[in-house]
Amino acid sequence: MNVSIINIGDELLSGKTLNTNSFWIKKKLASYGFHVQAQITVKDEADSIISGLNFCISTAPDFLFVSGGLGSTDDDITRDVLFNYVNTKAKIDLEYFESLKRRYKYANLKTNESIKRQALIPDNGEVIPNLIGSARGLKFKKNNTIIYALPGVPNEMKYMISNHILPQIINSIQNPLSSRTLRTCGISESKLHEIIGSRDVIDENRIGYYPSVYGVDIKISNKKINEIDYLVEWIYKIFGTYIYAEDENNMEDIIIKNCIKHNQTLAVAESCTGGLIGDRLTNVSGSSDAFMGGIVVYSNESKLKILGISKSILDQYGSVSEETALLMSKCVKNLFNSSIGLSVTGIAGPGGATEAKPVGLVYVGLSTGSDTVAKKFNFGKDRKRNKIKTSQMALEFLRKGLLSE
Amino acid sequence: MNVSIINIGDELLSGKTLNTNSFWIKKKLASYGFHVQAQITVKDEADSIISGLNFCISTAPDFLFVSGGLGSTDDDITRDVLFNYVNTKAKIDLEYFESLKRRYKYANLKTNESIKRQALIPDNGEVIPNLIGSARGLKFKKNNTIIYALPGVPNEMKYMISNHILPQIINSIQNPLSSRTLRTCGISESKLHEIIGSRDVIDENRIGYYPSVYGVDIKISNKKINEIDYLVEWIYKIFGTYIYAEDENNMEDIIIKNCIKHNQTLAVAESCTGGLIGDRLTNVSGSSDAFMGGIVVYSNESKLKILGISKSILDQYGSVSEETALLMSKCVKNLFNSSIGLSVTGIAGPGGATEAKPVGLVYVGLSTGSDTVAKKFNFGKDRKRNKIKTSQMALEFLRKGLLSE
Repeated sequence: MNVSIINIGDELLSGKTLNTNSFWIKKKLASYGFHVQAQITVKDEADSIISGLNFCISTAPDFLFVSGGLGSTDDDITRDVLFNYVNTKAKIDLEYFESLKRRYKYANLKTNESIKRQALIPDNGEVIPNLIGSARGLKFKKNNTIIYALPGVPNEMKYMISNHILPQIINSIQNPLSSRTLRTCGISESKLHEIIGSRDVIDENRIGYYPSVYGVDIKISNKKINEIDYLVEWIYKIFGTYIYAEDENNMEDIIIKNCIKHNQTLAVAESCTGGLIGDRLTNVSGSSDAFMGGIVVYSNESKLKILGISKSILDQYGSVSEETALLMSKCVKNLFNSSIGLSVTGIAGPGGATEAKPVGLVYVGLSTGSDTVAKKFNFGKDRKRNKIKTSQMALEFLRKGLLSE
Repeated sequence: MNVSIINIGDELLSGKTLNTNSFWIKKKLASYGFHVQAQITVKDEADSIISGLNFCISTAPDFLFVSGGLGSTDDDITRDVLFNYVNTKAKIDLEYFESLKRRYKYANLKTNESIKRQALIPDNGEVIPNLIGSARGLKFKKNNTIIYALPGVPNEMKYMISNHILPQIINSIQNPLSSRTLRTCGISESKLHEIIGSRDVIDENRIGYYPSVYGVDIKISNKKINEIDYLVEWIYKIFGTYIYAEDENNMEDIIIKNCIKHNQTLAVAESCTGGLIGDRLTNVSGSSDAFMGGIVVYSNESKLKILGISKSILDQYGSVSEETALLMSKCVKNLFNSSIGLSVTGIAGPGGATEAKPVGLVYVGLSTGSDTVAKKFNFGKDRKRNKIKTSQMALEFLRKGLLSE
């Protein structure tokens, strides 16, 4: 199945917005064995959109994904251009128009004539529902290509592809490609590649490595599911301790799930991450069953006064030390009356470093029913990356701690 | 000056690599007033590259940037394709070939015939030096377009554009475009558009609206800086209270800057945001001068025990209420001994709602030296968006509070 992608929007060409939509679509489609032939970004102008459409349609892809320009402002012209391009008339969906007006009113937004265009439906084409936003998607056929037009708002676009378009397409394929993704943390891409790449077994599989600040994802695709399972089992035997999740699950999902499963409650004391760990944990629906709360101790005074770290420890070892990390995890556990306490303290940078304690130095502490332990890390120079890496490695430390409970 | 961009590489289409090169080029060029008309990503195949070249050249841009496929492996075919496309012969630069061989030997890499292609120079075109890698860039002319071909390795590509290409181009421009971006929060794109779009004054300006979960950015571009300033001044008169920052600054930068400027210290009590507000504030380097810390009270017990909210208030009004938000902001201010306390409590969803308190209901509390106030919001159904919106509107509430101090 061949696919082309058109992203529409001046903001994508002016360097204002990073085109993560296109990246997400490519990754998602690749996991189902689709080949993306070309991706093109054009301006919010009819001529540009039409030349982009012509370019893509000329290579006759099975599917063409168009995103952006379905909103209610004057520069949202994708809908009109497409109606002309596939030569269809349009009418107002009055019921949807009324519901739009109600939604705008509920959100205290003024309704005007321009929102009416979001209620237009084509005579010759279909509408794709949007349960989380106001711009619905559209589906057309041109020559042998099916065109899907989707809003540029990322979560609306993702929702439509995941819940409406992909199930529809996959249903129509005889022998679709399957895939499994193993998410690792704490091991490099080259190390994984060195070991996994040398196995003959991979000849029948398609293996991709996707490194990010959270770790390296390994994606294995094959038309035969049992071949995937066989290779995955082998990878688990060698790299099992590094694998924290599969597929769409992320670290915080796994932590909350495991805490609930093992009947544990959790509190966090954060210094250099500033609240990021709590933020990630509370991104999980239902996290309140396990996550009791946390404290961000950004000043030494708050470490002493609120968390109750002893002054002598702070004076002797400093706030970025193994001793302080250990105490922070114990104290936050007591403060929130939870069964587990997790702590981080470190130097995110660019300021705050000394010769003995460079930017990127981080200690993670973990206090459970049975033990209190700490681990030292040395990350890089970038403040935001250091915060994310710290949060990820702290949660990974907790994940391993939960397994041994 | 009009520009098009072609990115070449299978890895960019398979969802393996996020196309940050293209983003960097667009942003860099936009800041010098270039208009990127189109960007296209194609496979490492001659036909794909040629059709991409034809597509871009057909719109006659002043400049065409091509990146990727200049390496020494078999799938690096950009060089050969371009030589054919502009109809030029090539010869070996023997001196460069010898220096390449020495570099490969020094790095313990095997040299083979294929590295020779990196030493090819066109009869009809120029070479752009690469001081940090082995693949040099190329410059051609086709019709009225100047084509720059650059390696896909990000730092090599950036080096060539910043140090060789841009200085050359800028030198030749008479009157470059300028722009200013006004960042607003709490007002809809359609409302802004309705008022600003009706002014004749905009005819001389190019105005773009960029909505996101953080608010709507308005970008005004013009060759005449005084025209931009005139319109900006007018927009400030009407929408000034909604404008929280300009250009690259974000809300947390402004908050930290204003707190430091007004000699204020800040502590936050977060419920539904789970730590996100603290995370955002601590993304700002030097935030420890103003941000004392925070507490994530995800359970009622922690609201009572650690924050010290009175049980009667919680029982009478519930944890998601104006009264609780007010008290939370007072209590966290006292706990951290800060001059300002900010609090949020709400229902992020999908669970936890009642008929009287739907998903998306949020109260923000702000306690300063002079006053304690609260504000109610109704956001949507999406948990993560609700968290982000809450953090943004809470910080905006704080920003306005700081202005009135």
